[in-house]
Amino acid sequence: MLRMNTQKKSSGNIIALLTDFGTKDNFTGIMKGIISCINPDAKMIDLTHNILPQDIFEGAFSLFQSYKYFPQNTVFLCVVDPGVGSSRKGIIVVTSKYRFVGPDNGLLSLAAKESMNCSIYEISNSKYMLENISNTFHARDIFAPVAAYLSKGISPELIGNRIKNMIELSIPQINYTGSHIEGKVIHMDKFGNLITNIQNSFSDNIKRIRVKSTSIKRINSSYSQGEPGKAIALKGSTGFIEIAVNSGNAKEKLNVDKGETIIVDI
Amino acid sequence: MLRMNTQKKSSGNIIALLTDFGTKDNFTGIMKGIISCINPDAKMIDLTHNILPQDIFEGAFSLFQSYKYFPQNTVFLCVVDPGVGSSRKGIIVVTSKYRFVGPDNGLLSLAAKESMNCSIYEISNSKYMLENISNTFHARDIFAPVAAYLSKGISPELIGNRIKNMIELSIPQINYTGSHIEGKVIHMDKFGNLITNIQNSFSDNIKRIRVKSTSIKRINSSYSQGEPGKAIALKGSTGFIEIAVNSGNAKEKLNVDKGETIIVDI
Amino acid sequence: MLRMNTQKKSSGNIIALLTDFGTKDNFTGIMKGIISCINPDAKMIDLTHNILPQDIFEGAFSLFQSYKYFPQNTVFLCVVDPGVGSSRKGIIVVTSKYRFVGPDNGLLSLAAKESMNCSIYEISNSKYMLENISNTFHARDIFAPVAAYLSKGISPELIGNRIKNMIELSIPQINYTGSHIEGKVIHMDKFGNLITNIQNSFSDNIKRIRVKSTSIKRINSSYSQGEPGKAIALKGSTGFIEIAVNSGNAKEKLNVDKGETIIVDI
Repeated sequence: MLRMNTQKKSSGNIIALLTDFGTKDNFTGIMKGIISCINPDAKMIDLTHNILPQDIFEGAFSLFQSYKYFPQNTVFLCVVDPGVGSSRKGIIVVTSKYRFVGPDNGLLSLAAKESMNCSIYEISNSKYMLENISNTFHARDIFAPVAAYLSKGISPELIGNRIKNMIELSIPQINYTGSHIEGKVIHMDKFGNLITNIQNSFSDNIKRIRVKSTSIKRINSSYSQGEPGKAIALKGSTGFIEIAVNSGNAKEKLNVDKGETIIVDI
Repeated sequence: MLRMNTQKKSSGNIIALLTDFGTKDNFTGIMKGIISCINPDAKMIDLTHNILPQDIFEGAFSLFQSYKYFPQNTVFLCVVDPGVGSSRKGIIVVTSKYRFVGPDNGLLSLAAKESMNCSIYEISNSKYMLENISNTFHARDIFAPVAAYLSKGISPELIGNRIKNMIELSIPQINYTGSHIEGKVIHMDKFGNLITNIQNSFSDNIKRIRVKSTSIKRINSSYSQGEPGKAIALKGSTGFIEIAVNSGNAKEKLNVDKGETIIVDI
Repeated sequence: MLRMNTQKKSSGNIIALLTDFGTKDNFTGIMKGIISCINPDAKMIDLTHNILPQDIFEGAFSLFQSYKYFPQNTVFLCVVDPGVGSSRKGIIVVTSKYRFVGPDNGLLSLAAKESMNCSIYEISNSKYMLENISNTFHARDIFAPVAAYLSKGISPELIGNRIKNMIELSIPQINYTGSHIEGKVIHMDKFGNLITNIQNSFSDNIKRIRVKSTSIKRINSSYSQGEPGKAIALKGSTGFIEIAVNSGNAKEKLNVDKGETIIVDI
């Protein structure tokens, strides 16, 4: 997506953070303090801290949409972790270009699976954790320190043993019959735009898109091309067809929630 | 506003970001990833990402209030862009001290017009954009890369051709008669303070300030000087007279919205 | 809490920010612009900007929970300041490891008092402030510049005179009788977890914890150990016993607010 010459520019010092911690509390500030203690040269970039609380798929999809825009060697520190303190593992996933750190609950899987081969390590060496490990805040006690050490160049082999599998999530598949595609709303952004699981490549042959009682006749080329207040469909910026309302909020206007069925007649 | 000796300290590597993207999604995180790919030394500072969705004037006024506190050569990357994907231009504005990047819809104009002379460039050289340009996310595909290249020292002449005009907004003018000034609420901050378009310099001759049925007799010197729960007026920190409520929220207490008339008897 | 070898890593350039300014406005962006003018090498880390408006205790407690995770020599720039423009002082507090800057209203005191001895300075030298001081935005005009100069190595003695006392807050004490402890909810996080003033060290001898009509029989070891939807108690990650609801929100479920009484039978 980036040009080759820009892709080459890379720094192992970048740590991108994605959590469901919100911005009300000091949770992410504490994580950054710890990272600064361990690697004073780390550059921290917030991807988002407003993943819906404990919504692992939303976190995984957000990471999937965004990781490829970061420099090679970026460490992604991701925590949406309803199972904190249980027996769920903490893992490091290393792909050809990136390192990912987080709980083994599928959160890292959509992004990591795009790489041909990836190595998975179970975090176990307490030398790279804080001295006292709580049962409720592994982001602070384990994941932030591990991400900081990785960004300093510590090898994942030193932090844990290689394991074969991680828990994997999938983007829900579309149902494809001769005459139509049945898809779903899999994400909604803050403007109320509905992101579907139907890839932009289907756009060329579309006769009609149906969401509940709304029917859309064509793919528009921009938000502003639609009549104000009317539902439109577009090739979305993340590769999937998107339903929007010009100068409005499609989620509210069409009264749609995540999971809603989308029918595309072709 | 800053002393001469501090103003001299400047760095071309600072990119200040102002958008209406909110913090729920990964939009600004993606922009920062791209910037890091192109200029690993860029220092990114969030001005705000919570401009009211598509409210160009609010964005322009926020930039106007804040740009002068930044080091010389700062690049301001600003995106409030209801016309994304339409024929509206993308521009770079260069003033004697700063560089501004964003859509040509007035967003950059209040800040840029304060400079005696400014040069405007229409962004056109695809070499400084991402390889694939969507119709819905120019912040990612065009503006972030352009800001990153500017921060690295690429000349704006290489990125686009010089043009003569940009779309310009104005701060609404006051009506001034012999006996009173009629102004407006042009901004409200998160504490519910009402920022007017009446400059602090009028404070000395004020007999009374009227907002709806509320009447204020004097200019106080601080928030805490007022009786708790009562409306007060102050010289605002951005140069305009401000209506506040001590330990309260003026917007809610006086039931006022943006655009509300303010009468100052003098 | 961090291991000795990590604690040694320190940088005087880190400025951690804690305010009640929210993220809607450009207030914190302006502060960061000024800091960059004065110390281009400053690294700014947001602790949180969402302290409840003017809630000094919440700010003090948040700082108390988090400061110790930062590198030695970090400057903490803290502003929750209902008394701005009044006669309240602006202070610098220097402890053996850290520097704190903010209003003298108790905000800095919970963190600073943990240090055996600390030196307090009243900010007075206008050379280290902006040229024009408003009565409403000392964060911009005084505290941000002072923090920036401290992070550059300017000695606090140059910025103000040493004073003996600051306003001090305390964490409310528990009432301890032979058979039970009476404590309080002193903080609630964004997940709705209730943080009490009862230290984790009491966990071993607990028979029952009562909040309103809810009764909890034991200390669980993790959030996920509880039955979904049921109230549980845990050793909290900040050293105090915490009431939570597995996959839910304890604040809403138990209809509890800050200050609510917690009875622990022992």
